[in-house]
Amino acid sequence: MPVISVTLLPGYDEGTEERLVQRLALAARSVIAAPAAGTTSFVMHANTYQRDGRVVRKGGAPHPDASALVGDFLARVEARELDAARQLLAPGFVMRFPGGALMTRLEELLAWARERYQRVAKRIERIDESWGDGVTTVHCSGTLHGVLLDGFAFEGVRFIDRFEVVGGLILRQEVWNDLAEVRPRAV
Amino acid sequence: MPVISVTLLPGYDEGTEERLVQRLALAARSVIAAPAAGTTSFVMHANTYQRDGRVVRKGGAPHPDASALVGDFLARVEARELDAARQLLAPGFVMRFPGGALMTRLEELLAWARERYQRVAKRIERIDESWGDGVTTVHCSGTLHGVLLDGFAFEGVRFIDRFEVVGGLILRQEVWNDLAEVRPRAV
Amino acid sequence: MPVISVTLLPGYDEGTEERLVQRLALAARSVIAAPAAGTTSFVMHANTYQRDGRVVRKGGAPHPDASALVGDFLARVEARELDAARQLLAPGFVMRFPGGALMTRLEELLAWARERYQRVAKRIERIDESWGDGVTTVHCSGTLHGVLLDGFAFEGVRFIDRFEVVGGLILRQEVWNDLAEVRPRAV
Amino acid sequence: MPVISVTLLPGYDEGTEERLVQRLALAARSVIAAPAAGTTSFVMHANTYQRDGRVVRKGGAPHPDASALVGDFLARVEARELDAARQLLAPGFVMRFPGGALMTRLEELLAWARERYQRVAKRIERIDESWGDGVTTVHCSGTLHGVLLDGFAFEGVRFIDRFEVVGGLILRQEVWNDLAEVRPRAV
Amino acid sequence: MPVISVTLLPGYDEGTEERLVQRLALAARSVIAAPAAGTTSFVMHANTYQRDGRVVRKGGAPHPDASALVGDFLARVEARELDAARQLLAPGFVMRFPGGALMTRLEELLAWARERYQRVAKRIERIDESWGDGVTTVHCSGTLHGVLLDGFAFEGVRFIDRFEVVGGLILRQEVWNDLAEVRPRAV
Amino acid sequence: MPVISVTLLPGYDEGTEERLVQRLALAARSVIAAPAAGTTSFVMHANTYQRDGRVVRKGGAPHPDASALVGDFLARVEARELDAARQLLAPGFVMRFPGGALMTRLEELLAWARERYQRVAKRIERIDESWGDGVTTVHCSGTLHGVLLDGFAFEGVRFIDRFEVVGGLILRQEVWNDLAEVRPRAV
Repeated sequence: MPVISVTLLPGYDEGTEERLVQRLALAARSVIAAPAAGTTSFVMHANTYQRDGRVVRKGGAPHPDASALVGDFLARVEARELDAARQLLAPGFVMRFPGGALMTRLEELLAWARERYQRVAKRIERIDESWGDGVTTVHCSGTLHGVLLDGFAFEGVRFIDRFEVVGGLILRQEVWNDLAEVRPRAV
Repeated sequence: MPVISVTLLPGYDEGTEERLVQRLALAARSVIAAPAAGTTSFVMHANTYQRDGRVVRKGGAPHPDASALVGDFLARVEARELDAARQLLAPGFVMRFPGGALMTRLEELLAWARERYQRVAKRIERIDESWGDGVTTVHCSGTLHGVLLDGFAFEGVRFIDRFEVVGGLILRQEVWNDLAEVRPRAV
Repeated sequence: MPVISVTLLPGYDEGTEERLVQRLALAARSVIAAPAAGTTSFVMHANTYQRDGRVVRKGGAPHPDASALVGDFLARVEARELDAARQLLAPGFVMRFPGGALMTRLEELLAWARERYQRVAKRIERIDESWGDGVTTVHCSGTLHGVLLDGFAFEGVRFIDRFEVVGGLILRQEVWNDLAEVRPRAV
Repeated sequence: MPVISVTLLPGYDEGTEERLVQRLALAARSVIAAPAAGTTSFVMHANTYQRDGRVVRKGGAPHPDASALVGDFLARVEARELDAARQLLAPGFVMRFPGGALMTRLEELLAWARERYQRVAKRIERIDESWGDGVTTVHCSGTLHGVLLDGFAFEGVRFIDRFEVVGGLILRQEVWNDLAEVRPRAV
Repeated sequence: MPVISVTLLPGYDEGTEERLVQRLALAARSVIAAPAAGTTSFVMHANTYQRDGRVVRKGGAPHPDASALVGDFLARVEARELDAARQLLAPGFVMRFPGGALMTRLEELLAWARERYQRVAKRIERIDESWGDGVTTVHCSGTLHGVLLDGFAFEGVRFIDRFEVVGGLILRQEVWNDLAEVRPRAV
Repeated sequence: MPVISVTLLPGYDEGTEERLVQRLALAARSVIAAPAAGTTSFVMHANTYQRDGRVVRKGGAPHPDASALVGDFLARVEARELDAARQLLAPGFVMRFPGGALMTRLEELLAWARERYQRVAKRIERIDESWGDGVTTVHCSGTLHGVLLDGFAFEGVRFIDRFEVVGGLILRQEVWNDLAEVRPRAV
């Protein structure tokens, strides 16, 4: 136990249905202490489906994988491919970085960064997805390494980013890290 | 669509089954763009169940709500009820705070804090749960307010905590915040 | 084939669930030429049910049997128990009889009848129910017998009544019969 | 609630399965006060099916739509396409019209009509289907318009026809209308 | 895979439902190479059930365990409790022993045995049940030990009995063994 | 009742699924007194299936029909097609015949037989399959006919063979018959 059956209209690709059965199993096992070996989940296809008095012939589109989306976004920003990164942002996108104001454009972010680092990059250690009502929250944490403006090199500096993904696009990014802890204080 | 049916042995309380149907619906809607109105999930009871050649008469125990567990833990630590807080920790518990070393005992945390703040408290704005294989990750974010050792009062300082909950107990806590960004630098 | 399963919340009485499995079988057999012997329908109970983001603990109330309701109404009118009959009428009730205007009150009907018959009664031969979207239509047909004002006795005069039942009350009655065909013409 | 699943062998056309899920939903909602939004019905395909010790590879044939069949029949009779109309009649077909005897052949009907009208036609306002055990009853009601033999033109004269459809053919027609009420009495 | 669900009316005892899920799993695994760990079978209860136009409120009675029945029969015969043994026999019972004629009464069997052994008893090593259409066949095999009329003692003599169990009673017993092989030939 | 649904991954041939629904029905009817007419069993296809944290795309292979396998084996041995017969044997195969020692090779069997018969053949009257955990037992019974070494011709001599089939190969054969009972004793 448990046995989880999800009935869908046909038409989804294999990867979408796999993500579905995996997540249903995880959701169930987050509520009850069921071993993986005893947790079965599967997709059944309904051939004809009606709700609310209407026959529906096609299910809702698959969402892109939110974790992969966030990974792409971070990689594009790190590579300074701003046009490509921007395609992953929802209207109304905002981001906030440590000690900084709310920003809405990637150019602002780059300007903000230019005043802080010569360069910086992430080593992502964990990605956690949270499945909410209309929003998937992605937390991505690990360590930063790079060089500050003054040439101070750092690595192993803990960071965490929190993303809200809505409709397959990033609506919000919040960033925390320990850089302020580790950089040498001005004397 | 989708229609999600989960078959369980009877014996769970109402709240457990409600969490189950809610999470199954969220898990499914994280994969496909199904409106809440078209997402149905329900618990069916199997009367007799066999897997692996054995009849099982009772399902796995319900897990405590990981978000509530984390909320309790934070409240107990804030109230300095260390014995009560400790009951929520798994063997092998570790925690790491900004700029600090790995700690394993709550007393270390208090000592570390005493060197930093006169007092500090959290305003929790969001709790995000991530349902993993054997572990539920809880991210809790919001703002800190309090007074530093030197009397500097602060509020609205962003923080985020990441907890790993295993078997209904907290195994790991990681904390990030912007305090180092906002406190005045020594001259 | 077909095998029809209907999943409900528990709480319905036996008669309601029996009507349900009977009607589901009839509905299916109206579409495909399935023999009764090969048509299976059954009620399963969901223990916990969620749709549209909300857990529902109780299903919609059972409707009264529309055919029985119509039978009661006809019997009460025939017995001139107008108060009792009126309890079965929905707000906005209208009725129309052969050659007559639209009436809204049972008193009008009695007045209309008093100008036509000394007495009249129905022998109901068939009741047909039609299950529509929010309305159940009941057709009731058979023969009339009675005595006209002028003493002319009749029987075997075909009639049919069409009722619209909404929310367990009668919203509309239409009556047809052959009385005008059979009564002797004035010379 | 309710969630209605009907398991069928594959091979039906889309329209048949759509009628099936629509009718199952209506049948269920005739018994309990379930809103359309909360009523789900769907067709699942069994790949291999056995009952009564025999594997069956093909389900019973779909029935023609009884309402459409009746509509066709009325149109063909009105257009005096008697051969075409006759193809829709079951062996043993009988019909009865106001004040008239039982007829078995469409030619009798035309002869009967010729003594009554120069012409007559129907405006169908409602068609109600009743799904019985081996028989679908169709009631069709609305108004007549036309010209009597003596040149008296009429319209808005209420009528209702009751058809019994068995095995996709019409077995019985009963007709009522108010023509006798409205035509001027001979002096 | 496979996931086997059997829908029953409630009312069976726990042991009956356990036998049911066990046998369904074995039946499935006899057809496809599914590991026990991946074979799930469970009983669901239908609350209201209709087939063939009739609502059925109670399922067919459980059959007694055919292997236990056969074991009881053999023990009773061995203990010469003929009345008790006879209660397990169906009308029309027949039995056949090595080299012997068809017998219908247990007394005949005892007479036949008296001419062969001073005593004989079975060590049952395996019982195999075969589930047929209206009949369960039980094969019971192992070894005999005892003493022949002439005092010759034997043991480890292979035997097999084949029983047909119908409606919870034994209809037929066929016995084979190697006694004729092992007993010393008369010189 | 009962209604048995087995959910499988697609990919099995028609014959395999037919055997499956037949055996599930027989297994259920061996436990409860359900008439064949009221016993429904069917195969549903899961499109995507996960257990134990892994998505599985293909179900376990179908087993060969154990009764047919045994029939083939007996025919090949009778025809002295030893190479072909040997292909149906599992590693570790053993067989035991009346009064004989355990044999492991078909050549031993032929040698053993040559000392007993000029020829012998089986008339199979019944084959019974028993579905166990990892093993299917096949009992095959009927009569022998043939000629002994000394020219004594026999027929109608009862026999029974018990086979254990594992993984589609014969692991064990045990044979009983009445030959020792019927052959004339040496004087």
